[in-house]
Amino acid sequence: MSNVELAQSLPMFYRAYLQISNFISSSLSIFKTSQIVSLIKILEDAYANDRKILVMGAGRSGLVGRAFAMRLKHLGFDVYVLGDTIVSPIRRGDVVVAISGSGRTALIVTAAEAAKTAGAVIVAITTYIDSPLAKIADIVVEVPGRAKVSRIEDYFARQVLGVHEPLAPLGTLFEDCTMIFLDSIIAELMHKLGKTEEDLRQGHANIEV
Amino acid sequence: MSNVELAQSLPMFYRAYLQISNFISSSLSIFKTSQIVSLIKILEDAYANDRKILVMGAGRSGLVGRAFAMRLKHLGFDVYVLGDTIVSPIRRGDVVVAISGSGRTALIVTAAEAAKTAGAVIVAITTYIDSPLAKIADIVVEVPGRAKVSRIEDYFARQVLGVHEPLAPLGTLFEDCTMIFLDSIIAELMHKLGKTEEDLRQGHANIEV
Amino acid sequence: MSNVELAQSLPMFYRAYLQISNFISSSLSIFKTSQIVSLIKILEDAYANDRKILVMGAGRSGLVGRAFAMRLKHLGFDVYVLGDTIVSPIRRGDVVVAISGSGRTALIVTAAEAAKTAGAVIVAITTYIDSPLAKIADIVVEVPGRAKVSRIEDYFARQVLGVHEPLAPLGTLFEDCTMIFLDSIIAELMHKLGKTEEDLRQGHANIEV
Amino acid sequence: MSNVELAQSLPMFYRAYLQISNFISSSLSIFKTSQIVSLIKILEDAYANDRKILVMGAGRSGLVGRAFAMRLKHLGFDVYVLGDTIVSPIRRGDVVVAISGSGRTALIVTAAEAAKTAGAVIVAITTYIDSPLAKIADIVVEVPGRAKVSRIEDYFARQVLGVHEPLAPLGTLFEDCTMIFLDSIIAELMHKLGKTEEDLRQGHANIEV
Repeated sequence: MSNVELAQSLPMFYRAYLQISNFISSSLSIFKTSQIVSLIKILEDAYANDRKILVMGAGRSGLVGRAFAMRLKHLGFDVYVLGDTIVSPIRRGDVVVAISGSGRTALIVTAAEAAKTAGAVIVAITTYIDSPLAKIADIVVEVPGRAKVSRIEDYFARQVLGVHEPLAPLGTLFEDCTMIFLDSIIAELMHKLGKTEEDLRQGHANIEV
Repeated sequence: MSNVELAQSLPMFYRAYLQISNFISSSLSIFKTSQIVSLIKILEDAYANDRKILVMGAGRSGLVGRAFAMRLKHLGFDVYVLGDTIVSPIRRGDVVVAISGSGRTALIVTAAEAAKTAGAVIVAITTYIDSPLAKIADIVVEVPGRAKVSRIEDYFARQVLGVHEPLAPLGTLFEDCTMIFLDSIIAELMHKLGKTEEDLRQGHANIEV
Repeated sequence: MSNVELAQSLPMFYRAYLQISNFISSSLSIFKTSQIVSLIKILEDAYANDRKILVMGAGRSGLVGRAFAMRLKHLGFDVYVLGDTIVSPIRRGDVVVAISGSGRTALIVTAAEAAKTAGAVIVAITTYIDSPLAKIADIVVEVPGRAKVSRIEDYFARQVLGVHEPLAPLGTLFEDCTMIFLDSIIAELMHKLGKTEEDLRQGHANIEV
Repeated sequence: MSNVELAQSLPMFYRAYLQISNFISSSLSIFKTSQIVSLIKILEDAYANDRKILVMGAGRSGLVGRAFAMRLKHLGFDVYVLGDTIVSPIRRGDVVVAISGSGRTALIVTAAEAAKTAGAVIVAITTYIDSPLAKIADIVVEVPGRAKVSRIEDYFARQVLGVHEPLAPLGTLFEDCTMIFLDSIIAELMHKLGKTEEDLRQGHANIEV
């Protein structure tokens, strides 16, 4: 098969990749700068004052949270992940970063409420500012997901691409966008904390699986 | 502060987000179609013949692998993740998807070798086709990472942005790109297997954390 | 140092080991046979009818549950663990085994309630038959813990051993006792299902960490 | 059914429970006091000098290790678990506790070797002092397992109980015995470090799953 024929044998791969990468690119203008500034400030303060960070999320949102938590660890934060074996108790002034596209994941809302009762500052990363998670949060950071833009995306997929099923099903767009968003937060934190890539390498686990 | 001032207070966030999203977008033309066709075929065959899939990766590559494995599970695959409590034994004809940007992560190479000895088909997702992981793999799927493009990226960062440290440190570009890549593989599999988003929803855990 | 002097240099190790092993031994007469019969029956039925098992517990109780789940997997059960990456959706007739000494762990009660709503049969393994978890359970299996016997144990530790602090702190006695209890359930299941050790070995992961 | 009839309907449960609890009780006289003294000393030194502890084990041995690591965390140790999302890099003088009944688990031996190269003190908890893991360890702590006593146990099971299959299959005896052993190490550490149960409660995660 020629390259063109090969590519034609993968119609959805290329369309999905384009859709997801376009979604990520176009989300940059949707982020609320003031929310990001607040998030960075909370994390800088936690770093300066030796506060713990607890990252939580269910399913794929939890995995994206874990990828963020790893980088915070590399930067020298005292960070934990809900679901890890080793988790420190959360006290007044510690920070919880709770990730849920819908803001309705039952176990995450329950866990965030418990953290709030313990006095933690709750950061919700979600598409929905009126969700249960957002309502108990001290600050909300909006990350777009398919829910928020689904009509346009679906229109595009159906009318332009002639695709009848979503190319990025369920929470995919939120999860992928949050991954890039949080990696960009790491870049800002590196800058603000004066950390180099070599610092991160030094903080990286040397025995892991 | 005005919005412009706010944005100026986050110089690295916006640059990093642009760099990562541009990297993801421009990677589409770098993927090798024939490798993707082979990967899809191996996964389709595993599905059709009730073969198990074992996904493995260390650190953030492992998290990206887990996000992929969750979607395979939603699609109805008999899939496992190295590191989960519940893992099935791997037999001849089962498929291992091993993810490592460098292709040199010791525990992943060791695990992939053990799987090969057990008769599994080894898929390596890596930036380096001449790495130890790639060498033992039955098929290699190349995903670009900073390593492969670092000079250009670093040049861009240093000359154009005036940034002295990488905006996407360590394996970030590989991990983020692999996340989008594998989500696009899911779209193609949905199409090939005739699965709808509702099918995925039915296969999604209803109790999770 | 002589062996006697060495042993004297470890006063608490030997006392704790004796206390825990005595607790485990003496618990055998405390288990309620009818509860065990019910548990075995539910698990046999799940096996015969291809029902899924979801095991859940927080902290060390969760680890004991995972050890049990691994053996169920080796026996051929379709079993999942809350917290694993790969978890199947729970449907009517599936079985949830929820482990909590106090029966009050918030996230476990929340998760068990969600499973009950989905139609699952809820098995509570707990010291407290009047706890929130026990109340929503279809069957309760009582495993003694320090809470239940603490006065005697504490009296023994304080008066006989002259120890002012518990030798088996927090949930230790419940967790250790549940571990042995569930391993004995596995022996009964092997017998009832006609499984040999070789069957378990065949069902054991060959690539794990 | 009467209680006696009920108990008769569970022949293997009671036999297995007796066998495992007898095995645990009788192991106390088998432990090598000097090995335990060395282990306690290494852990005390790590605590006093702010050294990290990394606990590792595969499968059920890994779960037993995690239960131990949780208690070390409650005691205030800077402890990590191989497989957790958050793991600190291991440096010269840090301590690795590697658990493997056979001492031959490939990924654990590989990980322990990597830790040794990084300068860590390696503690092997194993039944076999001549195993690959024991050979690279700085100290070996022997915990009996079925392998070591299998002839007697099997004789007992076969001749006395008339049972043709092991009541405690595969690594069960090692894993259960190691669980009680390590919980007794915790009691000794509480004593040596002057920690009360209330201290442990303060160090216990308040949000966990």
